[in-house]
Amino acid sequence: MQEIKVGIIMGSQSDWPTMREAASILDELGVAYETRIVSAHRTPDRLWTYGKTAVDRGLQVIIAGAGGAAHLPGMMASKTRVPVIGVPVQTRALSGVDSLYSILQMPKGFPVATMAIGSAGAANAGLMAAGILALQDDALAERLDGWRAALSASIPEEPRDE
Amino acid sequence: MQEIKVGIIMGSQSDWPTMREAASILDELGVAYETRIVSAHRTPDRLWTYGKTAVDRGLQVIIAGAGGAAHLPGMMASKTRVPVIGVPVQTRALSGVDSLYSILQMPKGFPVATMAIGSAGAANAGLMAAGILALQDDALAERLDGWRAALSASIPEEPRDE
Amino acid sequence: MQEIKVGIIMGSQSDWPTMREAASILDELGVAYETRIVSAHRTPDRLWTYGKTAVDRGLQVIIAGAGGAAHLPGMMASKTRVPVIGVPVQTRALSGVDSLYSILQMPKGFPVATMAIGSAGAANAGLMAAGILALQDDALAERLDGWRAALSASIPEEPRDE
Amino acid sequence: MQEIKVGIIMGSQSDWPTMREAASILDELGVAYETRIVSAHRTPDRLWTYGKTAVDRGLQVIIAGAGGAAHLPGMMASKTRVPVIGVPVQTRALSGVDSLYSILQMPKGFPVATMAIGSAGAANAGLMAAGILALQDDALAERLDGWRAALSASIPEEPRDE
Amino acid sequence: MQEIKVGIIMGSQSDWPTMREAASILDELGVAYETRIVSAHRTPDRLWTYGKTAVDRGLQVIIAGAGGAAHLPGMMASKTRVPVIGVPVQTRALSGVDSLYSILQMPKGFPVATMAIGSAGAANAGLMAAGILALQDDALAERLDGWRAALSASIPEEPRDE
Amino acid sequence: MQEIKVGIIMGSQSDWPTMREAASILDELGVAYETRIVSAHRTPDRLWTYGKTAVDRGLQVIIAGAGGAAHLPGMMASKTRVPVIGVPVQTRALSGVDSLYSILQMPKGFPVATMAIGSAGAANAGLMAAGILALQDDALAERLDGWRAALSASIPEEPRDE
Amino acid sequence: MQEIKVGIIMGSQSDWPTMREAASILDELGVAYETRIVSAHRTPDRLWTYGKTAVDRGLQVIIAGAGGAAHLPGMMASKTRVPVIGVPVQTRALSGVDSLYSILQMPKGFPVATMAIGSAGAANAGLMAAGILALQDDALAERLDGWRAALSASIPEEPRDE
Amino acid sequence: MQEIKVGIIMGSQSDWPTMREAASILDELGVAYETRIVSAHRTPDRLWTYGKTAVDRGLQVIIAGAGGAAHLPGMMASKTRVPVIGVPVQTRALSGVDSLYSILQMPKGFPVATMAIGSAGAANAGLMAAGILALQDDALAERLDGWRAALSASIPEEPRDE
Repeated sequence: MQEIKVGIIMGSQSDWPTMREAASILDELGVAYETRIVSAHRTPDRLWTYGKTAVDRGLQVIIAGAGGAAHLPGMMASKTRVPVIGVPVQTRALSGVDSLYSILQMPKGFPVATMAIGSAGAANAGLMAAGILALQDDALAERLDGWRAALSASIPEEPRDE
Repeated sequence: MQEIKVGIIMGSQSDWPTMREAASILDELGVAYETRIVSAHRTPDRLWTYGKTAVDRGLQVIIAGAGGAAHLPGMMASKTRVPVIGVPVQTRALSGVDSLYSILQMPKGFPVATMAIGSAGAANAGLMAAGILALQDDALAERLDGWRAALSASIPEEPRDE
Repeated sequence: MQEIKVGIIMGSQSDWPTMREAASILDELGVAYETRIVSAHRTPDRLWTYGKTAVDRGLQVIIAGAGGAAHLPGMMASKTRVPVIGVPVQTRALSGVDSLYSILQMPKGFPVATMAIGSAGAANAGLMAAGILALQDDALAERLDGWRAALSASIPEEPRDE
Repeated sequence: MQEIKVGIIMGSQSDWPTMREAASILDELGVAYETRIVSAHRTPDRLWTYGKTAVDRGLQVIIAGAGGAAHLPGMMASKTRVPVIGVPVQTRALSGVDSLYSILQMPKGFPVATMAIGSAGAANAGLMAAGILALQDDALAERLDGWRAALSASIPEEPRDE
Repeated sequence: MQEIKVGIIMGSQSDWPTMREAASILDELGVAYETRIVSAHRTPDRLWTYGKTAVDRGLQVIIAGAGGAAHLPGMMASKTRVPVIGVPVQTRALSGVDSLYSILQMPKGFPVATMAIGSAGAANAGLMAAGILALQDDALAERLDGWRAALSASIPEEPRDE
Repeated sequence: MQEIKVGIIMGSQSDWPTMREAASILDELGVAYETRIVSAHRTPDRLWTYGKTAVDRGLQVIIAGAGGAAHLPGMMASKTRVPVIGVPVQTRALSGVDSLYSILQMPKGFPVATMAIGSAGAANAGLMAAGILALQDDALAERLDGWRAALSASIPEEPRDE
Repeated sequence: MQEIKVGIIMGSQSDWPTMREAASILDELGVAYETRIVSAHRTPDRLWTYGKTAVDRGLQVIIAGAGGAAHLPGMMASKTRVPVIGVPVQTRALSGVDSLYSILQMPKGFPVATMAIGSAGAANAGLMAAGILALQDDALAERLDGWRAALSASIPEEPRDE
Repeated sequence: MQEIKVGIIMGSQSDWPTMREAASILDELGVAYETRIVSAHRTPDRLWTYGKTAVDRGLQVIIAGAGGAAHLPGMMASKTRVPVIGVPVQTRALSGVDSLYSILQMPKGFPVATMAIGSAGAANAGLMAAGILALQDDALAERLDGWRAALSASIPEEPRDE
C-alpha cells in the first residue's frame, strides 16, 4: 500500500463538493491521500494535533479548503512546516473574496500557497501537490507531464456550436 | 487594586498605535485592563493558553486587534465563551478590508463583535467593553453615560474655519 | 415568567427570515427575547422611544438587523448605552456590503458589534447576546458551553459524499 | 436681508473643509444659507428638531455631508419632506465608499440626492440646491445659467504644459 | 389637463421595468409626467434636443435611468439647468456599480442627484421629484406628507412568520 | 473569396457563447474572419505561432476573449504588432473583474483594446474591428455607418409595457 | 507637413500630465497628432462638432482621456465611426475605477478601446493608435517594430540593487 | 558550490525592491538561488526558454513576481511542471488587486502558489520555497524549524510605547 503523503482537510462538510476536485486530480495521478474535516473554530484541538503530527506522520503536503473567515489554512501553516496549499471556497454574500483574503494575506513567516477561488482552485491544489511530490518521484513526474500533455492535446482547433 | 476584567490583545507590536485607542478609552472610564501581544500564527500556544484560562482568570471581555489575515479574534472566540471584540487594523495594500473580512465573516457558532477599521474602531472597542461591564456595574454605567453626554455636549452648533 | 433582556429589532418584515436565526439560537439557549420592527426611517419615533426606554425596561442587549443604508443599529447605539449587536442583511445589488459599511463604520463614541453578513451573522448575534448575559448567569454560561461543545462534537472526522 | 432657504449641515467639524465647497458655490450664486453641525449619533435630538422644524422655518433644501457610517442625510430625509442632498465625505480606510453606501442605498420612501464623493460632490450639492431654488426664482436661474456659461467659456482649446 | 413638469427618460426599453417604479410613485401622488427613451449613445441628438428644450417646455425635474456606462443622466445635466435625478440600473456583471459610478462621479458644475441602485432608487426618484415640486405646490406637499405618513403607519409592531 | 483579416481567438470552448457575438457582428457587416481556440496556458506554442505569423498571414485585427487569469489577449499583444482587442469573459466567483484586470492592466509597450465584460463587449469587439478595417475600406465604412444608423433608428420614442 | 490622423482629446487640463504620455509615444514614432480639451459636460457642443467632423478632417484614431464620470470617450464613440481609444485617468477617492467603468462598460454599438488606468494606459493608447495606422503605413510599421524590439532589448538579465 | 534549485524571476527591475525579500529569506536559510528579469511581454522568448529548461537545469522551485496584468507566474506555470510561487506586486491605481487576480485565478491545469500582495508575500515565497526543498533536505528542515522558532521567540509579551 502506498504511503499517504497528502492530507486534504477542510473546514466543514459543505466544503467537500469543492475539495473533491483536489481528490479527483490526485486519484487521476495515482497519489494517495487522506481526507479530514478539521474546523479551525469548532475543532481547534484537532487542528493542533493534525499540525503537530504532520511531519512525523510523513505528510509532505497539506491541502486546506475553507470559506468565509477561512482560518484553517493559515492556522495549519503556523503549526507545521509542511507546505500548506489553501483553497478559498466560494461564499454566498462575498463570493469567496472573504475566504481569499483570510487565506492569502498571511504575515511574514507563515506562507499559504493560495489557489483560485472554488473548484478550479481545488483541482489546481491537487496538481500543485503532485508537482511538489514529483520533485522526488520520477514516475509521478512522468504521469504529471502526461496529464499536462493530454490536457493540451484535448483542445480543439476551433470552437463549435453546441 | 481593581480586578482586571478586560484583556486587550493584538497580533503584533505594530498594532499597538491602533489598539492604544482602546486602552485610552478604558483609562478615561476607569476600567482596569491588561495588554498582551498574542500572535495567532507566531505564538499559537500563547493564544491557546490565553483562551483556555480566560474564564478562570476572570476576564469578561477580550478586545483583539489584528491586520491582514487577521485570525486572532476568531481563533480566540473559538477557545473561550468570553465575548470577543475584534478590531480590523488598517493594512497597506488592502486598507484593512482583508483584516475586516477575516474578523467579520465568522461561521455560525463563534461570533466576533467587529468594530470599524482602524483607530475609531479601537476606541469603540473600549466603549463596547465598558458597555458590557456596565450591565453589572452601576458606577461604570454612570461614568459611561457621562462620557457620552460630554461627547454630545462638545459638538459646537456651527462649523468654524481653522 | 422569565424577564426579557434581549430585544431583536429589524428594519422591516423582509429582514425576518434572516433575523429569525438569532431568535432560534436564543430559543435553543433558553433566553427570553422580544421581536420588534423598528424602522429607522419609517418609524424614527419608535426607534427613539425604544432606545430611550431600553435601560429602564431592563434590556441588556439589543440585536438590530437591517439592509442597504442600514441606519437602525447605529442610531439605536446613539440612543442607549445598552450594547447593540448589528446584523447586515444581504441585499440584491450590493450583496450586503452596503448594509455592512453602514453598520460597521460607526464614529468614535457609538460602537455597534457587527456580525457577518446574513443568516450566519444573525445566529452569531444570538450567541454573542448569550455570551454577554452569561457573564451574570452561570446557568446560561453552562448551557452556552454545552451548545459549543455539542457543535464541536457534531463535526465528523471525514467528509462524505452525499 | 435674504431669507435663508438652504441649510448646510454636517456630521462634524472635520467635514467642513469638504462642505465649505457647497457654501462657496452658494456665495457665488448669491443664495443665502446657514451652516450647522448636526451629528446623527452625537446630537440626535438636534437632528430631530432640525428636521421637524425645517418646513416651518422655510428651508427648501438641506445639504447634508457625512463620512463613514454616514447616517445624517438619510435620517434627515426621514424627518422632513424638504429635499435632502447628501455629500459622502472621503474617509481614510475606505475612501468614502462607506459614506457613499450609507447615504445612497436608502429604502423606498426616503430619497437622498447623493452627490460625488468629496469636494466636487460638495460643490455640486450647492449647484443642485441652486437649480432647485431657480425653479421659483428667475433671477437665480439667470445667475445659474451665467455660472454655467462662464464655466464652459473658461475651458481652453488645448492643454498646456505647466 | 395637468401640465407635465416631470420627464422620465431612460437609455433603453430594458430600463423600463426599473423606471416604471418612478412612474408608479408619480401616479400615486397625482403628478403628471412623460416617459421617453433617450439613449445617450444611440440617439445623442434626441438627448441634445430634449435637454435644450427642457426649460422652455416647462419641465421642472428630469428623472434619468441608465445602466453600464450610464452617460444619460450626466449628459442631460450638461445640457439643461433643470434638476436631473439619476437612477443606476442594475447590471449583469457589475451589479450596477458601473452604472452608479458613471452617474454619481460628475465633475464640479454638473450635479446629478443619484438614487440607490435599482427599483428602490427609481421609486425614490419619483418621491424626490415630488418633494421638489411640492416646494411650489401645497396640495402636492400635503399628498406627499400623507404618502409618508401612510408608509410609516403600515409598519407592523412585530415581524410575523409567513 | 474574401481575404481573412480578422482572427477571433479564445481561451477555451466555454468562451464561445460570449465570443460568438463578435462573429455575428462581423457576419452582419460582411467581414470575413476565422475562429480559433488558442489557450495561453494549455497551448502556448499555438499562441506563439499564431502571433508570429499574424502579420504575414494578412491579419489586421485579432479579437481575443478569455476569462479568469485571462492571459491570452496580453500575450498575443506581446507577439505581434497587429492590434489586439480583448474581451473579458464573465466568471463565476468574480463576475469577470478578474478577466478584466488581467486583460486591461497591460504595462507600457503592449496595449490591449479592452471591451466591456461579456456579450456586449464581444459584440463591440466586432464593431471595433470593423471600424479599424473601415479606415481602408470605403464600402465597409458605409456598411458600418448604415449599421449604426439602423441601430439609432430602431429606438422607439417611448417605453412600452410588455 | 504630415497630415494629422490622430486626435488626443481630454476632459480637462488636469488630464494632460497623464495624456502627455500618449503624445510622447507618438512623437517617438513620428506620428503627427493634435491635442484638444473637449469636455463632455462643459463643452458638449465642442464634442459634437469634433465628432461630426472627424471623418472629413481625416482623423483615423481618437485618443480620449477622462476621469470620474468619464463620458468623453463613449460620447465621442457615439458621434463618429473613427476608432476611439479611451484612457481612464486616476482619481482621488476611487483610484480611477470610476473612470474605468464609465469608459469600459459601453453598450453594444459603441465600442471604446479601453486602456489601463493612468500613465501606462496613456502611453499604450499612443502605441495602439500607431498599430492601427501601421496597417496602412509600412514605414510606421517598421518604426513600431523597431520600438518594440528596442524595448525588449533594454531589459537586463538580472535585477540590480540601486 | 551549492547547486541552484530556486529561481527568483520578476517582470521588471521595478519589482526588485519587493522581490528582494524573497532573496533575503533564502540567504538567511542558506538556500542558493538565481535572480532573473523575465518579462512575459517584453521578453517572451526568455520566458519560453527559462520554462523549457527549468527541469533540466535542476530548478525545483520558481518564485515569480509581477504587477498589473501579471502574466509571468501563470505563463511560467504553463511551460514547466516545476512548482511556481507567485508574488503579486503592489500597484499604483489598484493596489495590487490587479496583480493578484492575474496571478491567482489560473484555470484548471496550471496552479500558481499565490502569496500575499507585496513584501510580506515575497518573504513568504522564500519560506514556501524553503519548505518545499526541506522535504528532501533534513538540514534545511532543521534551519527552517529554527527560523520559525526564533520568530516566535522574538514576540514580546506586551506591547510597548515607542
